[in-house]
Amino acid sequence: MTGSLVIAGLGPGAEALVTPEVTEALAEATDVVGYVPYVARISPREGMTLHPSDNRVEMDRARAALMMAAEGKRVVVVSSGDPGVFAMASAVFEALEGRPDWQALDIRVLPGITAMLAAAAVAGAPLGHDFACINLSDNLKPWEVIERRLRHAAQGDFAMAFYNPRSASRPEGFAKALEVLRAECGPDRLITFARAVSSPEERLVTVSLGEATPEMADMRTVVIVGNSATRRVGRWVYSPRSVE
Amino acid sequence: MTGSLVIAGLGPGAEALVTPEVTEALAEATDVVGYVPYVARISPREGMTLHPSDNRVEMDRARAALMMAAEGKRVVVVSSGDPGVFAMASAVFEALEGRPDWQALDIRVLPGITAMLAAAAVAGAPLGHDFACINLSDNLKPWEVIERRLRHAAQGDFAMAFYNPRSASRPEGFAKALEVLRAECGPDRLITFARAVSSPEERLVTVSLGEATPEMADMRTVVIVGNSATRRVGRWVYSPRSVE
Repeated sequence: MTGSLVIAGLGPGAEALVTPEVTEALAEATDVVGYVPYVARISPREGMTLHPSDNRVEMDRARAALMMAAEGKRVVVVSSGDPGVFAMASAVFEALEGRPDWQALDIRVLPGITAMLAAAAVAGAPLGHDFACINLSDNLKPWEVIERRLRHAAQGDFAMAFYNPRSASRPEGFAKALEVLRAECGPDRLITFARAVSSPEERLVTVSLGEATPEMADMRTVVIVGNSATRRVGRWVYSPRSVE
Repeated sequence: MTGSLVIAGLGPGAEALVTPEVTEALAEATDVVGYVPYVARISPREGMTLHPSDNRVEMDRARAALMMAAEGKRVVVVSSGDPGVFAMASAVFEALEGRPDWQALDIRVLPGITAMLAAAAVAGAPLGHDFACINLSDNLKPWEVIERRLRHAAQGDFAMAFYNPRSASRPEGFAKALEVLRAECGPDRLITFARAVSSPEERLVTVSLGEATPEMADMRTVVIVGNSATRRVGRWVYSPRSVE
């Protein structure tokens, strides 16, 4: 038996947003590897072993998955959303460094609906023009890098989408980000907090930056900030296609 | 009969990348509206009328779709990729301005796999860290805005994804973009040209900015530029998760 490794995106939560390609890969998997809440979304079946693991052990998880694939298993590493956006794909490729044996394996990345695009769809079309996508977690990069990127994104008049805006352990980062954004974009810029999109707990709130407070976000929230032209129409928010 | 308008993303091309949610909306549609090559992807059936239209008539198309929904039809507006990324969602919301009657309609956006994420998945994980997404077409914005955004994205050390890099009518824009990128990022930065991803004509090439030429892109190409840490491993390209 030849092993394989598929790095699959499960989308934001709803079954109706899982691509047929990912569903098929899971139907053929012998082993499914991932962070506990994502593996919990997979229905167990005969012939498939589930390997849930904790957050922040991405490199260990990637190596364990590669090791099983090298043993001949058909392994699927699952991420929420898209595996290439702040998820497991980068960790797996990092684990391939210096390992030509693993590099020779059959490895594929299957894209998924990433949280910011699911959130944008519910909100309207706030990312309908140029935008920047930033991970606000300072777990893997210093705050200075985050602040520099926020300022460049704002000064370039990009709309912005933020992942991992506010962790329970370091909630002060998002308060600082809001301050930077208010200074760069002014108090009237629209900001959308999209929590648990496509799940039964989905909740969407759009306010101005002046009204935004850090408590409006948690780790299940994707935050979208409009560009200078982003506006409301009816119950939606959208960014016009044209710049004058 | 109550009308409805669904703005649906068909993904980059392969059937296996169309979400079940979109498939279901198409199964219930009475009318499908969109640019000719996207409508051509829909299998005709009894009870459904296809309304293909030309490129660059997005506002007319949006209004025609809303008018049919107001008449009680179940209309699906199809876009390639994700409808909220340089596609029909913004045009539809723009068409709602000043029309409270249309704003009262049942309108939903269904996300799809957008081209840059499908391309990134084939390439590896070049968008695995913060990135900026820019439409290089100067059809709806002046070149000065594009150049300013390229410079801010480069100076913020974002990876970048470019849509509509090079039109047949104005091919010089992409040559200028490459010059700006070489000046800001140096000749060694990796750039990936992903053409017709997930279709039988899929073709992927990664070179350095120094080796890149304008002819490597056309309107069916998504271009991905790495950040300063983006590197090759085996046959893939990825952006590490950490910044020192």
